[in-house]
Amino acid sequence: MDRVFVIGAGMTKIGRFFEKSAKELFAEALWRAIEDAGGVKPQAIVVGNMTSSVLMQQDSLGALVADHAGFRGLPAFKVEASCGSGGVALYVGYALAKSGIVDVVAVGGVEKLTEANTETVTRALAQAADADYEVFYGLTFTGLNAMIARLYMNMFNYTDEDLSYWPLKMHEYASFNPYAQLPRKTSLEEILTSPLIADPIRLYHSSPIGDGAAVVLLVRGEERAREISKIVGRDVLIELASVSVVTDSVDITTRRDLLTMESTVKASREALAKANLTIKDIDYVELHDAFHITAYASLEDLGFAPKGMSVRLYKEGKFQKGDKPEVNFSGGLKARGHPVGATGVYQAAEAVMQLRGDFPGYKASSPETALTHNIGGVSTIAAVSVFKRVK
Amino acid sequence: MDRVFVIGAGMTKIGRFFEKSAKELFAEALWRAIEDAGGVKPQAIVVGNMTSSVLMQQDSLGALVADHAGFRGLPAFKVEASCGSGGVALYVGYALAKSGIVDVVAVGGVEKLTEANTETVTRALAQAADADYEVFYGLTFTGLNAMIARLYMNMFNYTDEDLSYWPLKMHEYASFNPYAQLPRKTSLEEILTSPLIADPIRLYHSSPIGDGAAVVLLVRGEERAREISKIVGRDVLIELASVSVVTDSVDITTRRDLLTMESTVKASREALAKANLTIKDIDYVELHDAFHITAYASLEDLGFAPKGMSVRLYKEGKFQKGDKPEVNFSGGLKARGHPVGATGVYQAAEAVMQLRGDFPGYKASSPETALTHNIGGVSTIAAVSVFKRVK
Repeated sequence: MDRVFVIGAGMTKIGRFFEKSAKELFAEALWRAIEDAGGVKPQAIVVGNMTSSVLMQQDSLGALVADHAGFRGLPAFKVEASCGSGGVALYVGYALAKSGIVDVVAVGGVEKLTEANTETVTRALAQAADADYEVFYGLTFTGLNAMIARLYMNMFNYTDEDLSYWPLKMHEYASFNPYAQLPRKTSLEEILTSPLIADPIRLYHSSPIGDGAAVVLLVRGEERAREISKIVGRDVLIELASVSVVTDSVDITTRRDLLTMESTVKASREALAKANLTIKDIDYVELHDAFHITAYASLEDLGFAPKGMSVRLYKEGKFQKGDKPEVNFSGGLKARGHPVGATGVYQAAEAVMQLRGDFPGYKASSPETALTHNIGGVSTIAAVSVFKRVK
Repeated sequence: MDRVFVIGAGMTKIGRFFEKSAKELFAEALWRAIEDAGGVKPQAIVVGNMTSSVLMQQDSLGALVADHAGFRGLPAFKVEASCGSGGVALYVGYALAKSGIVDVVAVGGVEKLTEANTETVTRALAQAADADYEVFYGLTFTGLNAMIARLYMNMFNYTDEDLSYWPLKMHEYASFNPYAQLPRKTSLEEILTSPLIADPIRLYHSSPIGDGAAVVLLVRGEERAREISKIVGRDVLIELASVSVVTDSVDITTRRDLLTMESTVKASREALAKANLTIKDIDYVELHDAFHITAYASLEDLGFAPKGMSVRLYKEGKFQKGDKPEVNFSGGLKARGHPVGATGVYQAAEAVMQLRGDFPGYKASSPETALTHNIGGVSTIAAVSVFKRVK
């Protein structure tokens, strides 16, 4: 089968944009990606999105954004896998390109969260959990993760402060990222005195709600990718070497171990194997830190740290500048922001730019390989992708 | 690239099932398809669905149905393209199989519409239209189609009665279909005296709202398909020769001609070309008759009748038993039912069974080729698929 390459990437800044609708955000990101690819246009558009049906009362989202961006007619549709929608959209776009049905695919994600009030958005995001067995009983998504955080802290004997080094660092990274929603540094004190949302999760332990869109352009075949690279004067190709999607139960009560996201474990192993790499080969990572606990669990379940050790390792400076892997220099969901269905595509765009060396924020140390990790629910869906720099 | 074959198909009856949730309906259809394929199990699950986010307050739908059906772990996600979600799910499944990422894909559709009240469902279905430019002004989806029906009738000088032969025939066909929601004959009088929903569209000119699920199992490669056929004792293969998806604007005000569904025209041409067939080669058709006007416009835009002629031709007996093509022997959306995001997969399952000769309802005359046509919105999305009987 032909290999698949990323020839362009585009993002909007993440924020609260009263003046921009979802289709406008999407068009902005798409045309940046097209410009980044030297003008190459897509033949199909896959849109990762979670909340358009509920918050915008809008279905047919794929056609809507395609038309507005100037691509009326193209195959265009929405892919939903709650907060993992962007990562799953990448899986679908990868399949479309690899299948030969089209040669160039735009994989995008878009979310418009800030027009509704907090209660409405909280309810919309809770739809990632089981409507009958979890949400019905009043559980919010932060509540679910708070229970897991408490269990983790008790099990491995960590304090609030121990877990707060992750958000501290994410804010620092985001301060360099022009696309970030919260591009400013914070302090341990600010984190530890921020309001409790669901004990032990505080405001500064959580990712913010934001509007945004990101797009990557995929092309099938090394030859075509090289032609395009020449046109834009780039001496490097970025291969999308694999995308793996693994699901788990939606309600977490039927899981064997609440502290292990089995779908993340499996998706990581599978994506690495398909890319002919091991976990030790990965230089750069963008992972899904919806809450501080999600970051630590992800480091462990992806295979970068033993269970229970990631908090200690992170506090000691691991996964930071000069280490292998370097993790979340975008600022992560925590501070770059988390426009839910778009997040997986932001990660892909950031990984591509880090591999090319042109990420406009905090720079990784010349990575050759990158892994992105995007989940929906409590890893109800895990999408792990591997990217390679090819000379 | 390898060819793709349909090795199994399963459906539930369509109806109002208070006792069955979406995941239960999906599991029923999936396991029927697996049984139909001699026990071959999927490696990925694509779920076409429109309304789960709004009517079930449930996202992560792919993982939910996969887990409930016994397939926790598999890649599983939802595809949304309003009423065309099923047809687009088939496009995605076709790409997944063809790409070589997996060998066996279950493409399903499921919808659970009957638990909400009529107003809520009407609002949910209106989300196929443009939230800002159409629904905001109070337009329902029936209202939109009523305006088009009125224009068509004025333009080509047809009466209410002229257009009513379609639903009359659909009810007759459905009376043979064990999966149909309205398996009973009707009369012109009953149709013409049924309540007006949106003038000139009457109740009996419209498809009903129903719960249901359908699944087809796709496999890559002729050799594998032959092996499976042998196991189940079938002497024929059904190839999914092509799937084309084409979009149009969501709001219909920006279209050039309200009486031509351009995306249907293009998708039909493209799907036929990819399958190396012409319109004259098609023996059997399942098309998207959400309203009587949709049926006639579809016959014309797919290429089976000149513009404005389909009503006359249908009244004269064309597209019926013994003609080429034979159309909608399932009873169509009108009388088989229209579980919106599942409809495109019902059509695929029916086409497959008609080609195999084992459709348990009104039988086509030994077709060798079949075409299915599923749309979202007023052909905002058109998905056209071509199936071939292979010896």
